[in-house]
Amino acid sequence: MGGDHGAETIIDGARLALQSNASITQLILVGRPEDIEAGIKRTGCRDPRVTIVPATEVLSMEDKPVEGLRRKKDCSILRAVDLLKEGRGDALISPGNTGGIVAASTIRLRPLAGVDRPGIATVIPGQKNDFVLLDSGASVECRPLHLLHFAIMGSIYSREILGYQTPRVGILSNGTEPNKGTETTQEACKLCKMADLNFIGYVEGHDLFDDRVDVVVCDGFIGNIVLKTLESFAKGLGGWVKDEIFTNPKRILGAMLMKNALRTIKRRLDPDRRGGAPLLGLNGTIFKAHGSASARAISNAIGECTKALQHRLTQMIVADIAKAGALATVQKS
Amino acid sequence: MGGDHGAETIIDGARLALQSNASITQLILVGRPEDIEAGIKRTGCRDPRVTIVPATEVLSMEDKPVEGLRRKKDCSILRAVDLLKEGRGDALISPGNTGGIVAASTIRLRPLAGVDRPGIATVIPGQKNDFVLLDSGASVECRPLHLLHFAIMGSIYSREILGYQTPRVGILSNGTEPNKGTETTQEACKLCKMADLNFIGYVEGHDLFDDRVDVVVCDGFIGNIVLKTLESFAKGLGGWVKDEIFTNPKRILGAMLMKNALRTIKRRLDPDRRGGAPLLGLNGTIFKAHGSASARAISNAIGECTKALQHRLTQMIVADIAKAGALATVQKS
Repeated sequence: MGGDHGAETIIDGARLALQSNASITQLILVGRPEDIEAGIKRTGCRDPRVTIVPATEVLSMEDKPVEGLRRKKDCSILRAVDLLKEGRGDALISPGNTGGIVAASTIRLRPLAGVDRPGIATVIPGQKNDFVLLDSGASVECRPLHLLHFAIMGSIYSREILGYQTPRVGILSNGTEPNKGTETTQEACKLCKMADLNFIGYVEGHDLFDDRVDVVVCDGFIGNIVLKTLESFAKGLGGWVKDEIFTNPKRILGAMLMKNALRTIKRRLDPDRRGGAPLLGLNGTIFKAHGSASARAISNAIGECTKALQHRLTQMIVADIAKAGALATVQKS
Repeated sequence: MGGDHGAETIIDGARLALQSNASITQLILVGRPEDIEAGIKRTGCRDPRVTIVPATEVLSMEDKPVEGLRRKKDCSILRAVDLLKEGRGDALISPGNTGGIVAASTIRLRPLAGVDRPGIATVIPGQKNDFVLLDSGASVECRPLHLLHFAIMGSIYSREILGYQTPRVGILSNGTEPNKGTETTQEACKLCKMADLNFIGYVEGHDLFDDRVDVVVCDGFIGNIVLKTLESFAKGLGGWVKDEIFTNPKRILGAMLMKNALRTIKRRLDPDRRGGAPLLGLNGTIFKAHGSASARAISNAIGECTKALQHRLTQMIVADIAKAGALATVQKS
């Protein structure tokens, strides 16, 4: 219910996913039944695998997460999380209030054994490699151990979903020298060095788009700022180029001849390609779709979730977090 | 002495500045006399306003700032800072080790009355407006009061140097709602609201390139990451576009027709336009030039310093910091 474009777009995305993805055995739409039924009618999403689970309320973008969830007991995000808790669903996709998704799933599903804080793992595309940035907005203030867990979860995600054999993991800092960073990042570096990771130490902003790192670890405050700043810059630059082109016909002709070059890049940068980002570290497969997700984005997000399930991402995270914990205990003793 | 291209480039920049800037009465080159004399010979920088002050050592990019300064007592940055302290120089420009510049000038010149921490104010160009990001790397961990001081200093800088009448000041956060951010940013918001600023509250990454804010306040850890990430993305994207263009002749022709559009943007984004960024909040006009600064960049950096002196930036900061302090005292009592 919580997307910018209403239930209809989400349902249209579900329709696309069901058409193309035979591995889906059931698709549950959670929300106001009248909105969902209207959406089904308008999009023609008539598939026997679709079920509706009613929820009378919606956590809006304006609601404060924890307070909103306390007030709106019958909101769609809580009902959807409960489906996972009860074993009636395997994965959850929501384009709604990020804080609400994080709070509802953390409270009801609990973090995985050994994990304290969930992290949103956003894939950022580059020319040479795609890297994972996490946490990009779930956990604002983090201790060193949380950053270690992000490193482990990001490494698994990069390997399993992006296909990097031994992902290079770095902690985002204001320079690559070991004396840089904060107390938290310095301590986190020590922990990551001990863990079974291809840990390359600190990375700085200059490294991100230069094929030097595959998993960029930071707290959710910084990750969110970095992600949104990049989105803002890319969008601003795109508009700027367009404005410059439309000042004269010669430039317009040039742009037409170059169209395919720009289109290739635009496609790679297109946020709809993945449709959002997974929330890792919880007892369940949770995916935050973009608030403004199109039907295609929602369909792709559903695809990302089936991949995560097929790769048994959650189970792998549990195993690697346990290994890191055991390693720390051995080294301490 | 500390730039990537050696003393010659710096001296060539000095030559350009002296040629175009009649307001300079003296230009002191600090460093190894043999290097400087060789540079003067090769660049033809023969101007009666040039003086040499010898320093036998150089703080390199690899030196840890405080430790390096303790070891290299006769390094050029310390000698240059001392010229300001003794009143023999009005402004200092260095392309060297940022931490070294911050440490040397903080230790020897001391912060301005009422200021605890200096901040680097980097101007980031956009299509619609240029904004100042500070601190972009001087002070890694900051308290709310430091962020207030950055807000005041950035506002003065934006007004005096960029010409924005009443600059919109925002604190960088992971969302614009007041409940977002960290304890530090929340407390800083309260302080900024009380100060005599055009304070607009939190800004997030999405706001930066959308003409919504003129002064973006954050700690030096985040500012450095944001700045370098943007530089990395812009550079990566530029190379990517080039690679895509050179895959076929039609695209090359298109690019040629579009050249002026791309050049206009490239010129606006060119870091050499300002040549670096001022370090605000210290008893002296200090300017961090880019390590890789060209002669033109150094000349422009010298120009920025003369502007800062003409606008009496330091005196204005002292006055406004004092006003904010008095206001806080009144409101407490």
